[in-house]
Amino acid sequence: MTLLKNLRGVAMIYIPYVVLERLKEYRKILLNLDCEYVTSEEIAKLAGVSSDLVRRDFMYLKINGQKKKGYNRIALLTELDETFAVKRNLNIIVVGGNRLGQALVTYDGFSSCGVRVVAIFDNNPENAGKFVEDLVILSLEPDILRRVIKRFSVSIAAVCVLPKDAQRVVDLLVENGIVGIWNFTPVKLAVPENVIVVDADLTSSLLMLKRLVDTKVFQKSEASNAYTSQE
Amino acid sequence: MTLLKNLRGVAMIYIPYVVLERLKEYRKILLNLDCEYVTSEEIAKLAGVSSDLVRRDFMYLKINGQKKKGYNRIALLTELDETFAVKRNLNIIVVGGNRLGQALVTYDGFSSCGVRVVAIFDNNPENAGKFVEDLVILSLEPDILRRVIKRFSVSIAAVCVLPKDAQRVVDLLVENGIVGIWNFTPVKLAVPENVIVVDADLTSSLLMLKRLVDTKVFQKSEASNAYTSQE
Repeated sequence: MTLLKNLRGVAMIYIPYVVLERLKEYRKILLNLDCEYVTSEEIAKLAGVSSDLVRRDFMYLKINGQKKKGYNRIALLTELDETFAVKRNLNIIVVGGNRLGQALVTYDGFSSCGVRVVAIFDNNPENAGKFVEDLVILSLEPDILRRVIKRFSVSIAAVCVLPKDAQRVVDLLVENGIVGIWNFTPVKLAVPENVIVVDADLTSSLLMLKRLVDTKVFQKSEASNAYTSQE
Repeated sequence: MTLLKNLRGVAMIYIPYVVLERLKEYRKILLNLDCEYVTSEEIAKLAGVSSDLVRRDFMYLKINGQKKKGYNRIALLTELDETFAVKRNLNIIVVGGNRLGQALVTYDGFSSCGVRVVAIFDNNPENAGKFVEDLVILSLEPDILRRVIKRFSVSIAAVCVLPKDAQRVVDLLVENGIVGIWNFTPVKLAVPENVIVVDADLTSSLLMLKRLVDTKVFQKSEASNAYTSQE
Protein backbone atom coordinates (compact mmCIF):
# COMPACT_ATOMS: atom_id res chain seq x y z
CA MET A 1 0.00 0.00 0.00
CA THR A 2 1.46 3.36 -1.04
CA LEU A 3 1.54 6.08 1.61
CA LEU A 4 1.29 9.66 0.41
CA LYS A 5 1.31 12.94 2.28
CA ASN A 6 -0.84 15.76 0.94
CA LEU A 7 0.07 19.45 0.91
CA ARG A 8 -1.38 19.98 4.37
CA GLY A 9 1.03 17.33 5.65
CA VAL A 10 -1.73 14.77 6.22
CA ALA A 11 -0.72 11.22 5.39
CA MET A 12 -2.95 9.74 2.70
CA ILE A 13 -3.14 6.26 1.33
CA TYR A 14 -3.25 5.97 -2.43
CA ILE A 15 -6.63 4.45 -3.33
CA PRO A 16 -7.47 3.47 -6.94
CA TYR A 17 -10.39 5.31 -8.51
CA VAL A 18 -12.65 2.28 -8.77
CA VAL A 19 -12.09 1.43 -5.11
CA LEU A 20 -13.01 5.03 -4.21
CA GLU A 21 -16.22 4.63 -6.22
CA ARG A 22 -17.09 1.56 -4.15
CA LEU A 23 -16.13 3.22 -0.86
CA LYS A 24 -18.49 6.09 -1.77
CA GLU A 25 -21.24 3.53 -2.37
CA TYR A 26 -20.57 1.76 0.97
CA ARG A 27 -20.70 5.16 2.69
CA LYS A 28 -24.17 5.78 1.26
CA ILE A 29 -25.29 2.32 2.38
CA LEU A 30 -23.95 2.85 5.91
CA LEU A 31 -25.65 6.24 6.19
CA ASN A 32 -28.89 4.47 5.40
CA LEU A 33 -28.52 1.71 8.01
CA ASP A 34 -29.53 2.05 11.62
CA CYS A 35 -27.46 -0.42 13.63
CA GLU A 36 -24.36 -0.42 15.82
CA TYR A 37 -22.40 -3.14 14.04
CA VAL A 38 -22.42 -4.27 10.45
CA THR A 39 -20.70 -7.22 8.77
CA SER A 40 -18.93 -7.23 5.41
CA GLU A 41 -21.55 -9.77 4.28
CA GLU A 42 -24.40 -7.34 4.98
CA ILE A 43 -22.67 -4.49 3.15
CA ALA A 44 -21.75 -6.80 0.28
CA LYS A 45 -25.35 -7.88 -0.17
CA LEU A 46 -26.64 -4.30 -0.30
CA ALA A 47 -23.87 -3.24 -2.68
CA GLY A 48 -24.18 -6.26 -4.94
CA VAL A 49 -20.55 -7.33 -4.59
CA SER A 50 -18.75 -10.17 -2.81
CA SER A 51 -17.97 -9.83 0.90
CA ASP A 52 -14.39 -10.64 -0.02
CA LEU A 53 -14.23 -7.49 -2.15
CA VAL A 54 -15.73 -5.41 0.67
CA ARG A 55 -13.08 -6.69 3.09
CA ARG A 56 -10.33 -6.00 0.55
CA ASP A 57 -11.67 -2.46 -0.02
CA PHE A 58 -11.76 -1.82 3.73
CA MET A 59 -8.06 -2.68 3.93
CA TYR A 60 -7.53 0.85 2.56
CA LEU A 61 -9.14 2.25 5.73
CA LYS A 62 -7.64 2.41 9.20
CA ILE A 63 -10.24 0.12 10.70
CA ASN A 64 -10.56 -3.52 11.71
CA GLY A 65 -13.70 -5.56 12.09
CA GLN A 66 -14.37 -7.69 15.14
CA LYS A 67 -14.93 -11.41 14.81
CA LYS A 68 -18.64 -12.23 14.36
CA LYS A 69 -19.76 -8.67 15.36
CA GLY A 70 -18.31 -7.04 12.24
CA TYR A 71 -17.48 -3.35 11.93
CA ASN A 72 -18.66 -0.53 14.16
CA ARG A 73 -20.86 1.44 11.76
CA ILE A 74 -20.08 4.91 13.12
CA ALA A 75 -16.32 4.27 13.22
CA LEU A 76 -16.51 3.04 9.64
CA LEU A 77 -18.43 6.16 8.57
CA THR A 78 -15.89 8.36 10.35
CA GLU A 79 -13.08 6.67 8.41
CA LEU A 80 -14.95 7.10 5.13
CA ASP A 81 -15.69 10.77 5.89
CA GLU A 82 -11.97 11.17 6.51
CA THR A 83 -11.14 9.48 3.21
CA PHE A 84 -13.29 11.96 1.32
CA ALA A 85 -12.38 14.85 3.64
CA VAL A 86 -16.09 15.53 4.12
CA LYS A 87 -15.46 17.69 7.17
CA ARG A 88 -12.79 19.94 5.63
CA ASN A 89 -13.98 23.24 4.12
CA LEU A 90 -13.49 23.62 0.40
CA ASN A 91 -13.81 26.77 -1.67
CA ILE A 92 -14.69 26.35 -5.33
CA ILE A 93 -15.40 28.69 -8.22
CA VAL A 94 -18.05 28.29 -10.91
CA VAL A 95 -17.33 29.29 -14.50
CA GLY A 96 -20.44 29.86 -16.61
CA GLY A 97 -23.22 32.22 -15.58
CA ASN A 98 -25.93 30.19 -17.34
CA ARG A 99 -28.73 28.27 -15.60
CA LEU A 100 -26.51 25.36 -14.60
CA GLY A 101 -23.84 27.67 -13.18
CA GLN A 102 -26.48 29.59 -11.25
CA ALA A 103 -27.96 26.32 -10.00
CA LEU A 104 -24.56 25.32 -8.60
CA VAL A 105 -24.19 28.66 -6.80
CA THR A 106 -27.52 28.08 -5.08
CA TYR A 107 -27.33 24.28 -4.61
CA ASP A 108 -28.58 23.19 -1.17
CA GLY A 109 -26.48 20.08 -0.79
CA PHE A 110 -23.01 21.65 -0.60
CA SER A 111 -23.16 23.21 2.85
CA SER A 112 -23.53 19.81 4.54
CA CYS A 113 -20.07 18.82 3.33
CA GLY A 114 -18.25 22.12 3.78
CA VAL A 115 -18.28 23.20 0.14
CA ARG A 116 -18.66 26.91 -0.62
CA VAL A 117 -18.89 28.64 -3.99
CA VAL A 118 -16.77 31.77 -3.52
CA ALA A 119 -17.12 33.29 -7.00
CA ILE A 120 -18.90 32.86 -10.30
CA PHE A 121 -17.28 33.86 -13.60
CA ASP A 122 -18.65 34.23 -17.09
CA ASN A 123 -16.67 34.35 -20.32
CA ASN A 124 -19.25 36.66 -21.86
CA PRO A 125 -18.39 40.18 -20.61
CA GLU A 126 -22.06 41.17 -21.06
CA ASN A 127 -23.03 38.98 -18.09
CA ALA A 128 -20.44 40.45 -15.73
CA GLY A 129 -21.98 42.57 -12.99
CA LYS A 130 -25.27 40.64 -12.84
CA PHE A 131 -26.18 39.05 -9.53
CA VAL A 132 -26.74 35.36 -8.68
CA GLU A 133 -28.10 35.48 -5.14
CA ASP A 134 -25.42 37.49 -3.30
CA LEU A 135 -22.59 36.83 -5.79
CA VAL A 136 -21.73 39.23 -8.61
CA ILE A 137 -20.82 37.51 -11.89
CA LEU A 138 -17.17 38.33 -12.59
CA SER A 139 -15.60 38.66 -16.01
CA LEU A 140 -13.28 35.78 -16.85
CA GLU A 141 -10.02 37.73 -17.05
CA PRO A 142 -6.67 36.24 -15.98
CA ASP A 143 -6.04 39.06 -13.55
CA ILE A 144 -9.32 38.75 -11.62
CA LEU A 145 -9.19 34.96 -11.80
CA ARG A 146 -5.71 34.82 -10.30
CA ARG A 147 -6.66 37.11 -7.43
CA VAL A 148 -9.78 35.12 -6.50
CA ILE A 149 -7.88 31.83 -6.67
CA LYS A 150 -5.18 33.16 -4.40
CA ARG A 151 -7.42 34.95 -1.92
CA PHE A 152 -9.74 31.99 -1.34
CA SER A 153 -7.17 29.20 -1.88
CA VAL A 154 -9.26 27.72 -4.68
CA SER A 155 -8.03 24.56 -6.38
CA ILE A 156 -11.28 23.37 -7.98
CA ALA A 157 -13.48 24.97 -10.64
CA ALA A 158 -16.89 23.83 -11.90
CA VAL A 159 -17.03 24.39 -15.66
CA CYS A 160 -20.49 25.00 -17.16
CA VAL A 161 -19.67 27.00 -20.29
CA LEU A 162 -20.79 26.21 -23.84
CA PRO A 163 -19.07 23.17 -25.38
CA LYS A 164 -17.31 25.33 -27.98
CA ASP A 165 -15.70 27.44 -25.24
CA ALA A 166 -14.88 24.63 -22.82
CA GLN A 167 -11.28 23.80 -23.80
CA ARG A 168 -10.20 27.44 -24.03
CA VAL A 169 -11.73 28.25 -20.63
CA VAL A 170 -10.10 25.20 -19.01
CA ASP A 171 -6.70 26.15 -20.47
CA LEU A 172 -7.07 29.58 -18.86
CA LEU A 173 -8.09 28.08 -15.50
CA VAL A 174 -5.16 25.67 -15.48
CA GLU A 175 -2.69 28.43 -16.42
CA ASN A 176 -3.88 30.33 -13.37
CA GLY A 177 -3.54 27.56 -10.81
CA ILE A 178 -6.69 25.42 -10.90
CA VAL A 179 -5.80 21.72 -10.52
CA GLY A 180 -9.28 20.16 -10.35
CA ILE A 181 -11.90 20.57 -13.08
CA TRP A 182 -15.49 19.59 -12.35
CA ASN A 183 -16.64 19.23 -15.93
CA PHE A 184 -20.34 19.78 -16.64
CA THR A 185 -19.81 20.10 -20.39
CA PRO A 186 -20.06 17.07 -22.67
CA VAL A 187 -16.54 17.86 -23.97
CA LYS A 188 -13.65 15.45 -23.37
CA LEU A 189 -11.11 17.91 -22.00
CA ALA A 190 -7.34 17.83 -22.57
CA VAL A 191 -5.37 18.86 -19.48
CA PRO A 192 -1.76 18.59 -18.28
CA GLU A 193 -0.88 15.49 -16.28
CA ASN A 194 -1.05 17.24 -12.92
CA VAL A 195 -4.67 18.34 -13.40
CA ILE A 196 -7.67 16.16 -12.53
CA VAL A 197 -10.91 16.23 -14.48
CA VAL A 198 -14.05 14.68 -13.03
CA ASP A 199 -16.91 14.55 -15.50
CA ALA A 200 -20.09 15.54 -13.69
CA ASP A 201 -21.89 13.36 -16.11
CA LEU A 202 -25.57 14.11 -15.58
CA THR A 203 -26.22 11.90 -18.57
CA SER A 204 -24.36 8.97 -17.12
CA SER A 205 -26.32 8.83 -13.84
CA LEU A 206 -29.51 9.12 -15.90
CA LEU A 207 -28.47 6.17 -18.08
CA MET A 208 -27.87 4.15 -14.92
CA LEU A 209 -31.36 4.96 -13.69
CA LYS A 210 -32.81 3.96 -17.07
CA ARG A 211 -31.05 0.61 -16.91
CA LEU A 212 -32.20 -0.04 -13.34
CA VAL A 213 -35.80 0.91 -14.15
CA ASP A 214 -35.77 -1.37 -17.21
CA THR A 215 -34.60 -4.31 -15.12
CA LYS A 216 -36.81 -3.56 -12.13
CA VAL A 217 -39.93 -3.16 -14.26
CA PHE A 218 -39.42 -6.71 -15.41
CA GLN A 219 -38.73 -8.08 -11.96
CA LYS A 220 -41.91 -6.41 -10.76
CA SER A 221 -44.03 -7.97 -13.50
CA GLU A 222 -42.35 -11.31 -12.87
CA ALA A 223 -43.19 -10.95 -9.18
CA SER A 224 -46.82 -10.15 -9.90
CA ASN A 225 -47.01 -13.15 -12.24
CA ALA A 226 -45.65 -15.31 -9.47
CA TYR A 227 -48.26 -13.86 -7.21
CA THR A 228 -51.02 -14.57 -9.73
CA SER A 229 -49.93 -18.16 -10.18
CA GLN A 230 -50.17 -18.71 -6.43
CA GLU A 231 -53.80 -17.64 -6.35
CA MET B 1 -26.52 -15.60 -14.73
CA THR B 2 -30.16 -14.49 -14.49
CA LEU B 3 -31.92 -13.71 -17.75
CA LEU B 4 -34.67 -11.12 -17.64
CA LYS B 5 -36.94 -9.75 -20.32
CA ASN B 6 -37.96 -6.11 -20.09
CA LEU B 7 -41.35 -4.65 -20.97
CA ARG B 8 -40.37 -4.18 -24.61
CA GLY B 9 -39.67 -7.91 -24.77
CA VAL B 10 -35.92 -7.42 -24.96
CA ALA B 11 -33.91 -10.02 -23.05
CA MET B 12 -31.77 -8.42 -20.35
CA ILE B 13 -29.18 -9.93 -18.10
CA TYR B 14 -29.42 -8.97 -14.44
CA ILE B 15 -26.26 -7.00 -13.59
CA PRO B 16 -25.49 -5.94 -10.00
CA TYR B 17 -25.30 -2.19 -9.39
CA VAL B 18 -21.60 -2.12 -8.59
CA VAL B 19 -20.78 -4.05 -11.77
CA LEU B 20 -22.85 -1.51 -13.75
CA GLU B 21 -20.82 1.28 -12.14
CA ARG B 22 -17.63 -0.37 -13.37
CA LEU B 23 -19.05 -1.05 -16.85
CA LYS B 24 -19.90 2.67 -17.06
CA GLU B 25 -16.32 3.46 -16.14
CA TYR B 26 -14.91 1.02 -18.74
CA ARG B 27 -17.21 2.62 -21.34
CA LYS B 28 -15.71 6.04 -20.59
CA ILE B 29 -12.20 4.61 -20.85
CA LEU B 30 -12.95 2.91 -24.17
CA LEU B 31 -14.47 6.11 -25.61
CA ASN B 32 -11.20 7.81 -24.78
CA LEU B 33 -8.94 5.23 -26.45
CA ASP B 34 -8.08 5.22 -30.12
CA CYS B 35 -7.18 1.65 -31.08
CA GLU B 36 -8.82 -1.33 -32.78
CA TYR B 37 -8.19 -3.95 -30.09
CA VAL B 38 -7.79 -3.61 -26.35
CA THR B 39 -6.84 -6.20 -23.73
CA SER B 40 -8.40 -6.64 -20.30
CA GLU B 41 -4.97 -5.78 -18.85
CA GLU B 42 -4.95 -2.38 -20.57
CA ILE B 43 -8.48 -1.57 -19.39
CA ALA B 44 -7.68 -2.84 -15.88
CA LYS B 45 -4.66 -0.58 -15.62
CA LEU B 46 -6.63 2.53 -16.65
CA ALA B 47 -9.51 1.66 -14.33
CA GLY B 48 -7.30 0.78 -11.37
CA VAL B 49 -8.70 -2.74 -10.95
CA SER B 50 -7.38 -6.24 -11.62
CA SER B 51 -7.63 -7.65 -15.16
CA ASP B 52 -9.36 -10.63 -13.60
CA LEU B 53 -12.17 -8.36 -12.42
CA VAL B 54 -12.44 -6.76 -15.87
CA ARG B 55 -12.80 -10.19 -17.48
CA ARG B 56 -15.40 -11.22 -14.90
CA ASP B 57 -17.36 -7.99 -15.50
CA PHE B 58 -17.27 -8.57 -19.26
CA MET B 59 -18.90 -11.97 -18.73
CA TYR B 60 -22.13 -9.97 -18.34
CA LEU B 61 -21.75 -8.79 -21.94
CA LYS B 62 -22.35 -10.79 -25.10
CA ILE B 63 -18.75 -10.53 -26.25
CA ASN B 64 -15.62 -12.65 -26.25
CA GLY B 65 -12.04 -11.51 -26.46
CA GLN B 66 -9.56 -13.05 -28.86
CA LYS B 67 -6.40 -14.69 -27.59
CA LYS B 68 -3.53 -12.16 -27.41
CA LYS B 69 -5.42 -9.55 -29.49
CA GLY B 70 -8.00 -8.85 -26.77
CA TYR B 71 -11.41 -7.27 -27.37
CA ASN B 72 -12.52 -5.36 -30.44
CA ARG B 73 -12.98 -1.88 -28.98
CA ILE B 74 -15.96 -0.85 -31.14
CA ALA B 75 -17.79 -4.15 -30.57
CA LEU B 76 -17.23 -3.72 -26.83
CA LEU B 77 -18.57 -0.16 -26.93
CA THR B 78 -21.61 -1.33 -28.90
CA GLU B 79 -22.33 -3.93 -26.22
CA LEU B 80 -21.95 -1.35 -23.45
CA ASP B 81 -24.20 1.13 -25.30
CA GLU B 82 -26.75 -1.68 -25.52
CA THR B 83 -26.42 -2.39 -21.80
CA PHE B 84 -27.25 1.22 -20.94
CA ALA B 85 -29.72 1.56 -23.85
CA VAL B 86 -27.85 4.67 -24.97
CA LYS B 87 -29.51 4.62 -28.38
CA ARG B 88 -33.11 4.26 -27.20
CA ASN B 89 -35.14 7.48 -26.82
CA LEU B 90 -36.23 8.31 -23.30
CA ASN B 91 -38.76 10.93 -22.21
CA ILE B 92 -38.37 12.35 -18.71
CA ILE B 93 -40.14 15.03 -16.69
CA VAL B 94 -38.56 17.56 -14.37
CA VAL B 95 -40.25 18.54 -11.12
CA GLY B 96 -39.08 21.84 -9.66
CA GLY B 97 -39.02 25.08 -11.65
CA ASN B 98 -36.03 26.50 -9.78
CA ARG B 99 -32.57 27.11 -11.28
CA LEU B 100 -31.55 23.46 -11.17
CA GLY B 101 -34.79 22.32 -12.79
CA GLN B 102 -34.40 24.93 -15.50
CA ALA B 103 -30.80 23.88 -16.01
CA LEU B 104 -31.93 20.30 -16.63
CA VAL B 105 -34.50 21.43 -19.20
CA THR B 106 -31.77 23.22 -21.12
CA TYR B 107 -28.88 20.77 -20.51
CA ASP B 108 -26.80 20.20 -23.66
CA GLY B 109 -25.63 16.69 -22.90
CA PHE B 110 -28.97 14.85 -23.04
CA SER B 111 -29.61 14.94 -26.78
CA SER B 112 -26.53 12.83 -27.53
CA CYS B 113 -28.07 9.90 -25.66
CA GLY B 114 -31.68 10.24 -26.74
CA VAL B 115 -32.99 11.87 -23.57
CA ARG B 116 -35.73 14.48 -23.90
CA VAL B 117 -37.37 16.55 -21.18
CA VAL B 118 -41.05 16.59 -22.20
CA ALA B 119 -42.46 18.65 -19.33
CA ILE B 120 -41.47 20.69 -16.30
CA PHE B 121 -43.71 20.89 -13.22
CA ASP B 122 -43.61 23.09 -10.15
CA ASN B 123 -45.36 22.49 -6.85
CA ASN B 124 -45.77 26.23 -6.35
CA PRO B 125 -48.86 27.23 -8.39
CA GLU B 126 -47.42 30.76 -8.72
CA ASN B 127 -44.73 29.48 -11.07
CA ALA B 128 -47.16 27.67 -13.37
CA GLY B 129 -47.46 29.34 -16.75
CA LYS B 130 -43.92 30.76 -16.81
CA PHE B 131 -41.68 29.65 -19.67
CA VAL B 132 -38.38 27.75 -19.55
CA GLU B 133 -37.14 27.92 -23.13
CA ASP B 134 -40.09 26.49 -25.08
CA LEU B 135 -41.68 24.59 -22.15
CA VAL B 136 -44.44 26.07 -19.99
CA ILE B 137 -44.11 25.26 -16.29
CA LEU B 138 -47.09 23.08 -15.36
CA SER B 139 -48.79 22.99 -11.99
CA LEU B 140 -48.09 19.76 -10.09
CA GLU B 141 -51.64 18.40 -10.01
CA PRO B 142 -52.42 14.66 -10.19
CA ASP B 143 -54.66 15.15 -13.18
CA ILE B 144 -52.14 16.99 -15.36
CA LEU B 145 -49.30 14.78 -14.16
CA ARG B 146 -51.15 11.59 -15.09
CA ARG B 147 -51.95 12.87 -18.58
CA VAL B 148 -48.35 13.90 -19.34
CA ILE B 149 -46.98 10.59 -18.02
CA LYS B 150 -49.42 8.64 -20.20
CA ARG B 151 -49.07 10.74 -23.34
CA PHE B 152 -45.26 10.68 -23.39
CA SER B 153 -44.77 7.22 -21.78
CA VAL B 154 -42.70 8.76 -19.00
CA SER B 155 -41.26 6.45 -16.36
CA ILE B 156 -38.54 8.72 -14.93
CA ALA B 157 -38.77 12.06 -13.12
CA ALA B 158 -35.95 14.37 -12.05
CA VAL B 159 -36.80 15.82 -8.65
CA CYS B 160 -35.34 19.26 -7.84
CA VAL B 161 -37.80 20.61 -5.28
CA LEU B 162 -36.98 21.97 -1.82
CA PRO B 163 -35.91 19.31 0.70
CA LYS B 164 -39.01 19.88 2.82
CA ASP B 165 -41.29 19.11 -0.18
CA ALA B 166 -39.28 16.21 -1.60
CA GLN B 167 -40.99 13.22 0.03
CA ARG B 168 -44.51 14.52 -0.60
CA VAL B 169 -43.73 15.26 -4.25
CA VAL B 170 -42.18 11.83 -4.75
CA ASP B 171 -45.20 10.13 -3.18
CA LEU B 172 -47.41 11.94 -5.69
CA LEU B 173 -45.16 10.98 -8.61
CA VAL B 174 -45.11 7.34 -7.60
CA GLU B 175 -48.89 7.23 -7.14
CA ASN B 176 -49.23 8.43 -10.70
CA GLY B 177 -46.96 5.91 -12.35
CA ILE B 178 -43.36 7.13 -12.09
CA VAL B 179 -41.01 4.21 -11.34
CA GLY B 180 -37.63 5.97 -11.55
CA ILE B 181 -36.68 8.96 -9.40
CA TRP B 182 -33.60 10.99 -10.31
CA ASN B 183 -33.10 12.64 -6.94
CA PHE B 184 -31.31 16.01 -6.90
CA THR B 185 -32.39 16.80 -3.34
CA PRO B 186 -30.19 15.85 -0.36
CA VAL B 187 -33.16 13.93 1.11
CA LYS B 188 -33.01 10.15 1.56
CA LEU B 189 -36.30 9.23 -0.08
CA ALA B 190 -38.64 6.43 0.98
CA VAL B 191 -40.26 4.66 -1.97
CA PRO B 192 -42.11 1.38 -2.57
CA GLU B 193 -39.99 -1.61 -3.51
CA ASN B 194 -40.80 -1.38 -7.22
CA VAL B 195 -39.47 2.18 -7.54
CA ILE B 196 -35.81 3.02 -8.16
CA VAL B 197 -34.11 6.10 -6.75
CA VAL B 198 -30.78 7.25 -8.13
CA ASP B 199 -29.24 10.07 -6.12
CA ALA B 200 -27.80 12.61 -8.53
CA ASP B 201 -25.33 13.43 -5.87
CA LEU B 202 -23.57 16.58 -7.09
CA THR B 203 -21.85 16.64 -3.73
CA SER B 204 -20.55 13.14 -4.05
CA SER B 205 -18.80 13.67 -7.40
CA LEU B 206 -17.31 16.86 -5.96
CA LEU B 207 -15.96 14.98 -2.93
CA MET B 208 -14.37 12.49 -5.31
CA LEU B 209 -12.65 15.33 -7.19
CA LYS B 210 -11.42 16.79 -3.89
CA ARG B 211 -9.91 13.45 -2.89
CA LEU B 212 -8.22 13.00 -6.28
CA VAL B 213 -6.81 16.54 -6.26
CA ASP B 214 -5.47 16.04 -2.73
CA THR B 215 -3.65 12.86 -3.76
CA LYS B 216 -2.47 14.20 -7.11
CA VAL B 217 -1.09 17.41 -5.64
CA PHE B 218 1.16 15.28 -3.51
CA GLN B 219 2.24 12.99 -6.32
CA LYS B 220 3.14 16.05 -8.36
CA SER B 221 5.30 17.56 -5.61
CA GLU B 222 6.89 14.16 -5.04
CA ALA B 223 7.66 13.96 -8.76
CA SER B 224 9.24 17.40 -8.80
CA ASN B 225 11.36 16.48 -5.77
CA ALA B 226 12.55 13.42 -7.60
CA TYR B 227 13.43 15.64 -10.53
CA THR B 228 15.36 18.05 -8.31
CA SER B 229 17.37 15.27 -6.74
CA GLN B 230 18.45 14.04 -10.15
CA GLU B 231 19.93 17.41 -11.05
